[in-house]
Amino acid sequence: MTRGTFIAFEGGEGMGKSTQARLLAEDLREQGHEVELTREPGGTPGAEEIRALLLAPPGEGWTLEAEALLFAAARADHVARRISPALDAGAWVVCDRFLDSSRAYQGMAGGLGDGCVTALHEIGSAGLLPDLTIVIDVPPADVAARLVQRDGATSDAIGGRAADYHASVNSAFLEFARSEPGRFAIVDGNGTVEEVHQRVLGAVKRHFGTAS
Amino acid sequence: MTRGTFIAFEGGEGMGKSTQARLLAEDLREQGHEVELTREPGGTPGAEEIRALLLAPPGEGWTLEAEALLFAAARADHVARRISPALDAGAWVVCDRFLDSSRAYQGMAGGLGDGCVTALHEIGSAGLLPDLTIVIDVPPADVAARLVQRDGATSDAIGGRAADYHASVNSAFLEFARSEPGRFAIVDGNGTVEEVHQRVLGAVKRHFGTAS
Repeated sequence: MTRGTFIAFEGGEGMGKSTQARLLAEDLREQGHEVELTREPGGTPGAEEIRALLLAPPGEGWTLEAEALLFAAARADHVARRISPALDAGAWVVCDRFLDSSRAYQGMAGGLGDGCVTALHEIGSAGLLPDLTIVIDVPPADVAARLVQRDGATSDAIGGRAADYHASVNSAFLEFARSEPGRFAIVDGNGTVEEVHQRVLGAVKRHFGTAS
Repeated sequence: MTRGTFIAFEGGEGMGKSTQARLLAEDLREQGHEVELTREPGGTPGAEEIRALLLAPPGEGWTLEAEALLFAAARADHVARRISPALDAGAWVVCDRFLDSSRAYQGMAGGLGDGCVTALHEIGSAGLLPDLTIVIDVPPADVAARLVQRDGATSDAIGGRAADYHASVNSAFLEFARSEPGRFAIVDGNGTVEEVHQRVLGAVKRHFGTAS
């Protein structure tokens, strides 16, 4: 059996990642592929419970270190219980956020350091990386307007952080993509959902050739 | 202000660690010390929520890797929110289980490896170690009888594991203690609670001189 293909979507809040992940999954299914559409943090019963702790922290809120460890724990469960079994069975896995979100949020913007985040991933998930990571890029100023439209005044523990934190996250994703062009594609997130979807399909075709 | 003193109790299930930790804390308080009596996993609102996830895993149960990451996350919160502030304020901290439990259960008996467990502790809690770790030693055969008496037929996800797992945990603790005699004291856990308590007090006096 040929091993499956793992595609992750990355980018800051309000970039349309969830929508684009869903549209790509639908497209792959129409082409006859077996597809697991999933998201992080979450994707398994255990990881969803950790997600709930991350988004509504008890007590005084998580320290940066505890937050990074919880994300790595959720990812370890997600990889072991869902992503790896699907890949072993030859399926396509389309995931809304993966390791590079931890690298951008806790490692770079939070200041824990990239070495710590990748060490946690090595221990928790044997360092599994997506075959392709699609970074959806929208200028931070445009994202602020999108987030107000999407969430209004409400926000969770991570989405609600300061604007410069989100700008720093955005530039971290672009930096990762530029330093590892073989694993990343940057897709322009401006325009309609359909326009962005067509750019995503183009990036997938360029990366995998005729596979999709 | 003089930094406080950190004492952890370690050993397998049913060794009487919780009782001995409480008795030592009471003794130190009677001597006029400020004392934080706490336990792991847990000790803070965040860490207690992680404890609940560890003892009653959702879904198929945690993998070894996810379990180790969750213990490290709970410890990071406990250290940052309670242990380090108490030590900074000059208090004595008496903790029922700490890092060496993760080294014994996940690192040695579980097979994750000591290097992984100590790497997680370095990232999560800046590698904080107790000034003294008291290992309560009871032969594994005697412990089995104690556990049946304490828990009856019920058991949680970790206490309920096979006998050879617990024997392996016990020998791991003794090995840690023998390889780092400056940080550990092995206390014979046979006899009455009061007899063991007197041995604990003796070990603390030998370790800290007149400090206690």
